[in-house]
This record gives sequence, C-alpha cells and structure tokens, in this order.
Amino acid sequence: MHEETESTLRTNTWQSRTQRYREAAAAKIPEAWRLDKQFTEDVGPTSQRSVLDVPSKCGILTDEELDITENFDIVALLERLAQGAVSSEAVTTAFCKRAAIAQQVTNCLTETFFDQALARAKECDAYLSSEKKTMGPLHGLPVSLKDSFTVKGIASTIGFVSFMDHPVADDDGALPKILLALGAVLYVKTNIPQSLMTADSDNNVFGRVLNPNKLLLGAGGSSGGEGALLAMKGSPIGVGTDIAGSIRIPAYVNGTYGLKPTSGRVPYGGQKGPARAGSFGIMPCAGPLARSVRDIEYFMRAVLSFDCWTLDEGVIAVPWRQQDAPAASQGTEEQGKKTLALGLILEDPKYPLHPPVLRTLKTARAKLEEAGHKVIDLAPYLPPGLINDANESGYTNFAMDPAKTSLGHINRSGEAIVPSILTGSLPELKHFQPSVDDVFRLNVERQRFKSIFRELYVKHKLDGVVLPTYQGTAVKHDMYGLPPYTLLVNVLDYPSITLPYMKADKGLDVDFRRDVTYIPPYVPDEVEGAPCGIQLMGRPMRDEELVADAQVIVDALAE
Amino acid sequence: MHEETESTLRTNTWQSRTQRYREAAAAKIPEAWRLDKQFTEDVGPTSQRSVLDVPSKCGILTDEELDITENFDIVALLERLAQGAVSSEAVTTAFCKRAAIAQQVTNCLTETFFDQALARAKECDAYLSSEKKTMGPLHGLPVSLKDSFTVKGIASTIGFVSFMDHPVADDDGALPKILLALGAVLYVKTNIPQSLMTADSDNNVFGRVLNPNKLLLGAGGSSGGEGALLAMKGSPIGVGTDIAGSIRIPAYVNGTYGLKPTSGRVPYGGQKGPARAGSFGIMPCAGPLARSVRDIEYFMRAVLSFDCWTLDEGVIAVPWRQQDAPAASQGTEEQGKKTLALGLILEDPKYPLHPPVLRTLKTARAKLEEAGHKVIDLAPYLPPGLINDANESGYTNFAMDPAKTSLGHINRSGEAIVPSILTGSLPELKHFQPSVDDVFRLNVERQRFKSIFRELYVKHKLDGVVLPTYQGTAVKHDMYGLPPYTLLVNVLDYPSITLPYMKADKGLDVDFRRDVTYIPPYVPDEVEGAPCGIQLMGRPMRDEELVADAQVIVDALAE
Repeated sequence: MHEETESTLRTNTWQSRTQRYREAAAAKIPEAWRLDKQFTEDVGPTSQRSVLDVPSKCGILTDEELDITENFDIVALLERLAQGAVSSEAVTTAFCKRAAIAQQVTNCLTETFFDQALARAKECDAYLSSEKKTMGPLHGLPVSLKDSFTVKGIASTIGFVSFMDHPVADDDGALPKILLALGAVLYVKTNIPQSLMTADSDNNVFGRVLNPNKLLLGAGGSSGGEGALLAMKGSPIGVGTDIAGSIRIPAYVNGTYGLKPTSGRVPYGGQKGPARAGSFGIMPCAGPLARSVRDIEYFMRAVLSFDCWTLDEGVIAVPWRQQDAPAASQGTEEQGKKTLALGLILEDPKYPLHPPVLRTLKTARAKLEEAGHKVIDLAPYLPPGLINDANESGYTNFAMDPAKTSLGHINRSGEAIVPSILTGSLPELKHFQPSVDDVFRLNVERQRFKSIFRELYVKHKLDGVVLPTYQGTAVKHDMYGLPPYTLLVNVLDYPSITLPYMKADKGLDVDFRRDVTYIPPYVPDEVEGAPCGIQLMGRPMRDEELVADAQVIVDALAE
Repeated sequence: MHEETESTLRTNTWQSRTQRYREAAAAKIPEAWRLDKQFTEDVGPTSQRSVLDVPSKCGILTDEELDITENFDIVALLERLAQGAVSSEAVTTAFCKRAAIAQQVTNCLTETFFDQALARAKECDAYLSSEKKTMGPLHGLPVSLKDSFTVKGIASTIGFVSFMDHPVADDDGALPKILLALGAVLYVKTNIPQSLMTADSDNNVFGRVLNPNKLLLGAGGSSGGEGALLAMKGSPIGVGTDIAGSIRIPAYVNGTYGLKPTSGRVPYGGQKGPARAGSFGIMPCAGPLARSVRDIEYFMRAVLSFDCWTLDEGVIAVPWRQQDAPAASQGTEEQGKKTLALGLILEDPKYPLHPPVLRTLKTARAKLEEAGHKVIDLAPYLPPGLINDANESGYTNFAMDPAKTSLGHINRSGEAIVPSILTGSLPELKHFQPSVDDVFRLNVERQRFKSIFRELYVKHKLDGVVLPTYQGTAVKHDMYGLPPYTLLVNVLDYPSITLPYMKADKGLDVDFRRDVTYIPPYVPDEVEGAPCGIQLMGRPMRDEELVADAQVIVDALAE
C-alpha cells in the first residue's frame, strides 16, 4: 500500500506530469528531423553558443529547403506559391523541419501539428491546381502562432500546469480562422512565460526558451518562442500578442521585426489568456513578428482585407489603408523621397541605456539626419519622470484584478513560480489592494499621458517617435526585469514597431559606457554580439503610416 | 441685524441665485426679439398648445428670415452661403432671432451669445468676399450646441447651481474648435437635465424644456434643448451627446433626426460633464441632431475631414468613408436601388409599445417590405430578457462611481433634486456599492451582448436593425422613465439613428391597443399629435453605411 501511494504521488506530482507532457511533445518530432548529438551537446541556458547556424549545418534540410527557409521573405514566397513555382507542401515541409530543429536547440515551441499542416498544405496545392487561383493572399504559407492562440484540436496550456487538463480547443480563435480563410497553413505554436507577464519565456510545462543568438541570453517574452523561431528562420512570419512589449521585446532581443498595432486593429478574440475575463484599461493586442517591414505591411493588409468584426466583436472594424510608397502624411516629399519629422526619446535617466544600445540610438540618429530626416530631441518637452509614471500606471493597471486570477492558475497545480516573475513586476505593488477609485484614477492618468504625447506630436508635427525598445540588449536569463520603453507605448496605445539595427560590440561600445547604474547590469562579454535595434512609435490608428515610415527608416539606416 | 441677515440669506438662497441667473440670461434677448404677450400667455408645462407656428406668426422674423430658417437644409443653405447668395450675417441673424423666439416658448436655451455670433458671421462674410473662397465646409452656418460643450468665454453650468460660480471656459472644446475651423458660427447653447442622466430636460438653473409640438409633453433629454430648438427651426443643425439615448430621445420626441455615432468617432474632448473624470465602460459620444439624413451625412463628413485627433486624444482617428449612393455593403443592388437586410426588434415584452409606436413600427415594416427590403423578426433569436439585462448592465455601469460625483454637484449647493431623476434610474441600484469585481463583471456582460448581436448580424447578413427609439411617444413631463431601446445600443456601442415617421393619432391607434401594462401609462388624448419614429442601428464603425442606409429607408417610408 505504502509503495503504491508513493508511486501514485510520484507519477502525479506536477513535475512528473509536465515531464510526460514534454516527452509527448518531443515524440511528435519525426525521427528523421532529430538533431545529431553534436548539435545538442552544448545546448543549455548557460551556453555561450549561437545556434543560428545549426539548421544549415545539421544536414536535415535539403538544399531546396534551406533555400525556401532562408532566401525569401513572405512577399516573395507567396508570389512563388501563387505561381506554383513551389508547392505549399514543399514550403510547409521545409518550415516544419526547420521549426523542429529550432525547437531542439532553443525550446521555442509548445504544440506542433506537422501532420495536420502537411495535409492542409496539400489541400492548398490541390486547390491551386484545380481552381487555378489561390485560396487567398496567404495561400500555402506556414504561419506560426504564440501558444495563446486557439487552434481547433490543439491544446493551449499557455504554460500553466493547471491548464494541462483543459480540453483541446473545440474551435479556431478569430485570427487563426482568418489566417486559414486567407489560405495560410498553421503548423506550430510557440513558447511563452508562465503568466505571460514577464520577458523571460519560461514555464513549468515547456521549460525555457533560449536566445538562438547566444543561448545564455533570454529570448524575451512573452512571445519569446516566436522571437527565437523567427531568428532561427523556422517560421516565415509569426503572430504574437503585446500588452507591455510582448511582441516587440522578443522581436528585438532575437534580432527580428515586430509590430504592436493600435489595440483592436488585429483580432484578439478567442485567445487563451492568463488574466481574468473582463479586463479593462490597457488592452493586449495581436501583431506580427517578421523578417522585414515589407512582410509586416503585407500581413496586416492581408488580415485586414478580411471583415474581421464578423468573427470578433472586439476589433475596431476599419480596413487597412494602403499607403503609397513613400507615405505622405506629415512629411514632405522630395523627388519621391519622404522626409520624416521624428521625435527622439533617447532615454529615461532612471533606465540608462546600456552602451551598445546608446551607440545604436546615437548612430541611428546620425544616419537619419544624414538622410535628411528631422530628429527632434523630446527630452526638454517631456515632464520629468513621465516614463516612470506611465510605467507605474501601467503596472497598477495590471494589478487591478482583486481575484489575482493568474496567480490562481499557478497555485491550483502547486507548480513553482518561475524566477522572472519576481523581477518582472513593481515591488511597490506587492500589497496593492485595488479599489474602484483606482479604476477612475488610472483612466485619468492614462488620458493625461495620451494628451501630453498628442500635444507633442502636434507641436512638432511628428510622424513618429524613435525610442529604445529596451535599455539593454538581451541579457542573461531572468535578468530582463521591467520594460519601461515598451510599456510606455501600451499605456499610450500607440502603434509601434521594433527594427533590428546593429549588434553589441564591446570594442565600439566602450566609448558609450557611463558612470551610471545600469538596470539590469551591463556585462559586455555576456552580451557581445547580441542584436540591437530601435523602436518607432507612430500615431494611434495610423498603423499604415507607421509601417510605411518604418520602411523609410530602414532604408535610411541601411545607407 | 436680524433683518439684514434674513435679507442676505434670501438673496443668497440657491433659488434667488438661479432667478438672477435666468433674468440675466433673458435680458440678453434684444427687446425687438421679445414675443408679444399673446404668444406667451398660455405657455407652460401643462399647456395643450403647440408653439411650432409661433415663429411664423409672431411678426419678429422678416419674410427672408422665415425663408432662410424654414426652407433649406444645411446642404442647401451652405451652397447658398458659399455662392454668396445669402450672407452669413443674414443667416445668423435669422437663426438668432428664431432661437430667441423658441427660447421664450420652450425654454430650450441656456447661454446665448448673439453679439459674438454676429461678429463671427461678418468675419465669415468678409473672408468670402476677400479670399473668394469659403472658410470651410460649414462656412457661415450657425450651429447650436448642447450646454455641455465648452465655448471660450461662455459658461457651462450644465444646470448645476454649484457650477454657476465656475469661471467661464478659457478655451473652446475640441468639437467647437473644429466647427469654427470649418467655418461655423456658434450662437447658442441648449438646455439639459440636472445630472444629464434623465430624459426630462429640467434643472434648477434654467428650468424645464417644453416640447414645442405640445407643451405639456417632455422634450426629451439629455439634449432636450437641442431637440426643441431643432423642431422650432431655431437651429439648422445642433450637436448633442448620448450615453443612454440623449441625442436620439430628444430628436425622436420632438420629431427630428438624430445620430449617435460609434463612440469615439466624433470628438468629445473638453466637455463639461456631470460625472467623474476617468469613467469607463459605456462612453458618451457626440453627434448631430438635424433636419434630414442628408444633413447628418454632410455634417459627419465635414467634421471628420478635420484631423480630429490633433485636438482630442479620445477619438478613434479614422476619416469618414464617403459612400456611393446607394451604399453597397451587404445589400444587393438592383437597377441602382439598394435592397437592405434589416433585423427587426419590435418590442421587449417588459416595455410594450404604446399603440401609436406599435402602429408606426408595423407600418414601417410593411412599407419596407413593399419597397423590396428584407425584414427579419429577431425575436426568435434573441435570448429572453436580453434588452432588460443589457439595460441593467448599463445602469449598473452608470452607478459605478463610489464618490457619486454627480450627486455631489447637486448637494454642494443645497439645490433640490429634479423629480425625473427618481424615475430615470433603476430602483434596484439605490443601495448598490460598486466593487472592482463589478468592473470585470460588467465588461464580461457587455462583451456577451456584443457577441450575441455580432452573431445575429453575421447569421442574417444584416445591414442594420430597426427598433423603436422608445416604447412611447413624448409623454407628460417627468413620466419618461427608463429608455430601454436606446440604452441597449449604447451598451453595444453600435451607431444608431432615429428617424421621424408618423404621429400619434388616437383614431388609428385604437386598433393597436392591447391589454398590457404600458410603462409609462399611455394616455391617448395627451399624446395626440406627438411625433413618432423608428430607430435604425448599424454596425460598429460603419456609421457611413448606417447613414446611407437611413436615407434608403427614409425614401422607402416616404413612398
């Protein structure tokens, strides 16, 4: 008896249950797609290795599959798919294989459904062949999704042990439905942090995502799996969600592009969420992580070509307004070239920029000015402490659920709280007891922030504002902490895009080192080679202009 | 000593202070515009009289002024203004005079600023003459505003005695600023109820608005002054605000058109409000009361041609999408004629339609079907009690301020609570103590209502839903009570328009009388001749299609 009880207990601890869940997930990767030991030996959260080259070296992908996964953005790939120059089956196979490889070195995936994906790909190919037209603007294209998106027949644990018992989704969520209607192929869901509210994608069900640029660095969050998968080129385009930076942070730290649209522009309906239904104030929103601005524009236009409101009452039902290249809102055009007026928020003194990020921002500024764009330092016009105040307001907003629903999901299974949750919230709020008065107060505060920025935009005729995505690059696991520069944008609910630009280089960065307290600490050797980038914030509901302007900036920075 | 104290007290009671305020307001009406006693003798809240003919009979308006105020909608008037066929001074004079007359018989105004208006009109005329172009799409047009709009130099007491001490506005609110930028002339603000939360426009500062169709009937609220002024043709177009029906109710009971847009489409920023700043959930929105659907379309297009976000961070910054006539969203076109698919909510059994309204709705249905439109009875598809549930949810939302700010504004001066406040709220909520949990609950409830209606629209491919604006016509003062059919739409945040159609006629209505409890009571003799109408609800953010479809319906009903 005693033995039996112990054995039952052992097999039912949350640790053993998650182990079985992970083993089952791993077993879904076909034998032929499993990496040779040499590629996985030194893989782990303390490894200095970059694994970006594993897919091309491991021998699992054919030359054609390497070509498909490496040499096209989605616009180019969709063109070839539509022409029948490549089959969806070939493209889907290539990305399934590459995603499986990425998983083995970065732990970026949660659920995989390769068989269904290949069946769907064949359906796309048959449709094109018989109907002589595509299923839609995303015909035959694999699209990866953050684990919180519901896909019919697939689990969405979002990393909670207590959600492992939930039945699989009995329907596709709004955006998955739209993607399928547009012709896309769904094939994997991607890893996230416990609670979705930290920038370290670590949970007890699936474990931790590693940054493929350097495994000892965090992959960001909460769409961390998307960021790592994109960097591994294991997905042509993926969809994340963002309430404090969860699209932009992982895009940034992994070195890809990520757009947080104005909330409500992309359907969010049907998400599996950690928070209590009926949240208010700062709303999460869905958006793409991609290889290029061009892909982001294409994706947004494709999704919003669908009448999204018919599937999701939460969307602001307005179509995508196609921009002429170059876009022409506030800027002036000279010989077909748009000149932008850009505000610059270099840093908040409370969160000084790490040397590589300061170098990146200063270099970007110089490049933009060289290209003829106007860059206006906003520091003199911002009320002191504004970014910090906005962040406090934002975190208070996130702490407004008296039932602490997310914590309840954790406690229900007895699973451990992942370490980063402790660094990813405001200590001041630990004993916060929300009241209805706080709801009114937070709305007033938020309107004040919005009003300040609106007036800045109007006063300086700004097309957008350049700011850091984060004060550092990717840092060691569980060190990311608070994301003041992304959360500011969610408090405002402006659309914002993060653009990869330069990399940490301690030889160059040393000149940008200052005698300040870096939070988190700046460790040059650790972050060497980590991707840098800039964030570009647009104007509410002008996601179209933002994306067009982002392309102008990418072009200027590339010159 | 004793006498002095008493006299000081007497002169400072809220009653004496409001009397002085009203006398000062009345004194601003020029002697020549004051009505002869014969026209004001039988004026009061128990009078059976209609005063609609007073302007044409009183001899104060010239023939040209009668022509200007009676025979043009704003589209036609603006065309003449732009051509210089009539001057803004002439038009403004005509409407100032007519508004002053309306005030003397219906008490529809709060603040008047005729002198400033005439100075502005001359400025418009001079501009046109020197620049050979208009100031904008509203060039030279007088526009009336609900008292809650702030206009530089003018008070906004919104009927609170305690607000009489407030300084006059030091700036124009967002929409007044935009109207002026578009060339409009501001000349009067219009009367409202104490608290803005009842449909009887009665307050202690300005008194009660009477319905010009029949003075013993209520003029609706909260934009009751606008409704009465429009019916008197004392304004070519006015702007109200709506959180539970406050544009549509006064438009309906006075017999004019009124649009509640999707909230956020028309700037609301800078309003003087009774409620606490930072409200959440159901948001108030601004919109026009007008003489025709054509005018509403023109006004919306004009306002949204301005980049409204530059003045108001609260707007959803999207331009007005011009519709081809006939509009072509879901409907099919035959020989240039659009066939609409319309849901019909005839009534909620808890709020049975008064006979004239039932007759109106049934006649409208028959006319619409005759004209080839598809009318689908939604009763079988609506969950039982839905309208009532939505209303309870809405009223709970309005009761969520723990500080009871509006009541505080009343209590601060010691003024009496107007009678209709007691009939215009849910008795169940009298002792309601809001909690943060209620905030979450209300958001979940609201999303459920939105989801139910979205699914109905999709299932039946609806262009819109026809429903009553109210269960009765205008009723006796202080009898209006709850407005279930308008508040439903605010809970959903769909755009909605009320269209005048038919009038109460006891001879015809008798056939529509049923053995039910009418709330409020149906008194055939009292309401004889009162305007009836229908409400048309569109789709969120498709205000453009709603207005285009409303024109199609008006045409069908006129056949």
